Order: sequence, then structure tokens, then C-alpha cells
Amino acid sequence: MANYVFGVDIGGTTVKLGLFDVGGNVLDKWEIPTRTENGGANILPDIAGSVRDKMKEKGIAAADVAGVGVGAPGPVDGNGIIHKAVNLGWGEMNLKKELGALLNGMRVEGGNDANVAALGEMWKGGGQGYRNLVAVTLGTGVGGGIIIDGKILTGATGSGGEIGHIHVEDHESEACGCGNYGCLEEYASATGITRLANRRLQASGEDSVLRGAEVSAKTVFDAVKAGDKLAVEVAGQFGEYLGKGLAVIAGVVNPEIFVIGGGVSKAGEILFEYIRPAFDRTVFHGCKNTKFALATLGNDAGIYGAARMVLD
Amino acid sequence: MANYVFGVDIGGTTVKLGLFDVGGNVLDKWEIPTRTENGGANILPDIAGSVRDKMKEKGIAAADVAGVGVGAPGPVDGNGIIHKAVNLGWGEMNLKKELGALLNGMRVEGGNDANVAALGEMWKGGGQGYRNLVAVTLGTGVGGGIIIDGKILTGATGSGGEIGHIHVEDHESEACGCGNYGCLEEYASATGITRLANRRLQASGEDSVLRGAEVSAKTVFDAVKAGDKLAVEVAGQFGEYLGKGLAVIAGVVNPEIFVIGGGVSKAGEILFEYIRPAFDRTVFHGCKNTKFALATLGNDAGIYGAARMVLD
Repeated sequence: MANYVFGVDIGGTTVKLGLFDVGGNVLDKWEIPTRTENGGANILPDIAGSVRDKMKEKGIAAADVAGVGVGAPGPVDGNGIIHKAVNLGWGEMNLKKELGALLNGMRVEGGNDANVAALGEMWKGGGQGYRNLVAVTLGTGVGGGIIIDGKILTGATGSGGEIGHIHVEDHESEACGCGNYGCLEEYASATGITRLANRRLQASGEDSVLRGAEVSAKTVFDAVKAGDKLAVEVAGQFGEYLGKGLAVIAGVVNPEIFVIGGGVSKAGEILFEYIRPAFDRTVFHGCKNTKFALATLGNDAGIYGAARMVLD
Repeated sequence: MANYVFGVDIGGTTVKLGLFDVGGNVLDKWEIPTRTENGGANILPDIAGSVRDKMKEKGIAAADVAGVGVGAPGPVDGNGIIHKAVNLGWGEMNLKKELGALLNGMRVEGGNDANVAALGEMWKGGGQGYRNLVAVTLGTGVGGGIIIDGKILTGATGSGGEIGHIHVEDHESEACGCGNYGCLEEYASATGITRLANRRLQASGEDSVLRGAEVSAKTVFDAVKAGDKLAVEVAGQFGEYLGKGLAVIAGVVNPEIFVIGGGVSKAGEILFEYIRPAFDRTVFHGCKNTKFALATLGNDAGIYGAARMVLD
């Protein structure tokens, strides 16, 4: 029985790596640059080299490593093959096989970064103690990861948990980054909140601390906490869209808990005051007791979840 | 290795039973009444007696039976415990344990009837060859069952796949049977289609073959096929709600295929002409190739899926 496991989270500019014991304690974590040139040909060799260096540094034998889990930004299917990771320059890439070969046959598991982060939050974060959860990341976009019976719901084409692009508004004139109109991401991401606030500032003459100031998800929720009426209305819109969206998700996969992370979640539990009314009003009665919690692992959720993938 | 398996589908008035070989060929099927009196105390003993009678009749030894799968109308958790089957008079009932004891320890598996029917359609029906599917039953209500990697998605409280009660309309004045307003079931069930048609007949003076005639999902789609303009509009509304609802579901669980069953599906493939436009317009691009098919097992989906549960 091996004692160690590596978790790797590949981002567009840096690769985060973590060395864990099999109980989920992080023993070391570090970063290397993501070299996206030449179609990202160096990324996996760089990771393999960094893993080998760390093993040498710590005096860890290959037999004592359960494996390496990898989260990557793109749709990853159930066989650990990633299909088009635009940010990395990759077309189709068999993470499991390629990285495994570079590490002399060491076990490798691969998953989509948002899904892997969800697994991390289940293991050691805001979803600890639960086996059925939906992680929601409110950052520049809205990401999601669904865990059913302790396992990532990958979906047929690796699009499971792509909750940022569920349709929530029929009357939207601006396109989402994905090309559709009225995606959840257009209202519940940091960018979406900023857009809602700017729209409202333009449409009304109402007084607000946001007027003439920097408008961001952070300043909006700071203003909400200070009792700014216009900001409270914007938070209400945000919560109405997100609450209804999460209620639909609850009716479909019936999780025990939603774990909310990403930059927007830094506003704290006040978010739930805006999400719960629409959630409670529209959710199926069998899902009324679904819990809400904040994510706790921040940017480390990916390396935790990646490591966890190897331990099944 | 056993050669036989029983599938049982408990309904409010009759219990359907099927004897299958382990390859999924139905060897016999029959029904017994559901005796709901005395809190449904006779239901499981009746089923056990009927299974034993069939084994005697066919000369099948207990060792040659893989087990008995049971679908029941209510939320069934991952342990085979059903929580409140109102139609049967049951409160909490441990299907697995109680029926197993009545059958001398024979293996019993239990599931929610809609979920079990989805598994049946995967095994031998419209979803054959797929391992990730969502079955949608458009009957008096709208039911659903989600299969991920060949297994039922039960959910934390047995409410997985309760897609009839996802919220799709903010401006609804009539309550759904569940108590909420604007559930998918209010527009996409047989009852919902009838309601949409009656509303439109009342609101407009438009000529229609439906005016003064019996209005039902069947007569509406018959009128659609005859080119009736008002009926086509009603079908458009139905398809808009259902197409958008299924697009959201696709973004969450990313199935390979939707299998559409229930009374409304007797209208045939014409349904897809009304569902696909809204689906294609609003679905996440990674899920654009999701297939649609009609269910093929009708009322037998339950006994097939129940039997299939035992073969894992």
C-alpha cells in the first residue's frame, strides 16, 4: 500500500502541484509555468519532470506513490482523454496514457478542472462528509462540478456539470462567451454581477455608492453590506437567477449540498441570503433541505481533488 | 450462475410481474391486484407468494434465481428503502429487507418506478446501447429517470430525476400538483398540453378543429398533423418549454440520449420537431449532439428495469 499521491492542476499560465499522504494531508505544494508553445508539447514532460524531482528530493520510491491525478481545463471523458484544451494548445490528449508513459507506467487519472475541484471540496473542503454534492464556482465565469456517490459525474462528452451555460433568461440581448443568450454565467459570475450593476446604474438615476466608483462583484457586495439600495437590488437579481438555477439542478441530481466557491464567494454567507429565497420558492419539495456551504480550499481545490481521483 | 430474474413494478392498482432470463428475454409476465388496505401490509407478501408460485409452476429452484427487482411509486434511497409511497399506503418501507425475508433471503433490489423504467429502456428499449441517458415520461404528469454509467442516479433523498418539477415559467398563476408555480409538468404533460390548448382556445377567436371538440394531448397532436394552426401553436409552446428544460438537464448531466415515453409520446417523432428548436438554441455547445429517441417498452419498462437492477 502506497503512502503518497500527487495532485496536479493545469492552468493556462501555471501548473499547480501538490504532494499528499493518502489521508489527504498536503506535504508540499509548488508551481511550475505552463509552457503552451508548440501546441503545449512540453506541459506533460514538465509535469513528469517536476514529479520525479520531488520524489528524488523527498526520497520517495515509485512503489510508494499511489499515482498522479491531473485536472485540466477542458472536457475530459471517462477514459481520461481531454478533448480540446484551448488554453493549453492541446487538441485531443490522452492524459492517462501520455503522462503515465512519461512516469514509467505510474497510475495517472485525469479529469476536468472544475469537476476535480468539486471532488477536492468533497474530500477536504466545504463538502467534507458528503458523497453527493454540486460545487459551484463563481469566478470570471460560472463553473460546476457534480459528485454522485463520491464520484465525478463526467457525462457523455465530458460536459457534465457545465452549469454556467444553463439557460435562465429568454430576454437577453448580449451573447454569452459560449455564443448562446441568457446563460446563468451572464448573471451569476463576477463579470455578470458587474454587468447587472452597470446596467442598473445606467437605467436608473438612483443614488448609489457604486456610481462613479469601480464596479466589481467585490464592490457590489461591499455596498450591499453597507446597505446601498441599488447594490441590494443587484444582489437580488443575482440571487434570483442563481437560486432558480440551483433549484433546477437540485431537481435533476438531488445533491445533499451545494458548495459555493470562486472569487464571488469571498463575499461570504451573505450570498445565501440572496440565493435561498428563489431556491426555496422554486425547488421540488423533495429537495427543500439541500444545504449550502462555502468552499474552503480556494485555489488548492484542484490539487486536492486531483490527488483524490487516484485513491479510488 | 443463476439463469432467471424477476422484475416487479408496483402500481397503485396492480402489481406487474415479469420472469426474465438473465439475457433480458421476458419468459412470462402477469399481474396481481395491489391490496392497499391496512397500510398496504399485504403488498409484499402477495408479491412473494406470486414469485414462489411462478417458480413452482416453472420448476425453477431458488439457486437458479439471481433475485427480484422492485420498482415502487415513491422516493427510494440508495439502500432500497422507500420513504412514503402515498398510493400504496406505506410510510417507510425497507423493500430490500422485508421482501428478501419473505423470500428466504433471496436478493432483492428496490428503486423508484420512474428511475427503474429508465433503466429498462436502457436495457431493452429506446436507449439500448447507451450507458448515459435521461428517460422522460410525458403522462398525466412528467416523470424522469437518469442513468449514469449504467446506474440509476438516485440522489440524496431519492429525488434524482424529478424533472417534472423543474421551474420553467415565472409567470404562472395556477399551482402545480406539487404546490409550486411554473413547473415543467404544467406545460409538457398530457394534462399540461390540454391546459395550454384550452387557454389558447379561450384567449383567441381563431378557428380550430379543437374548438367545441374533446381537447386532449392526443387530439391536439392529431390536429397538429392535420395542419391546424392553433394546435401547431400549442405544440410550439409545449416544445419551447420542454426543449429548454431538456437543454438545462443536458448541461447538468450530459446524457448521450433522451428517451421520451408516456402517453404523449404516442404522437411519435413529430414531438422532436417541436422540442429540438428550443433545445438546439439554448443547450451548451458540448451537448449539442445529444440524441432523442422514443421509448419502446411502454408499460413494461418497469418490469424490465426492475429485473436489470438485480444483474449488477
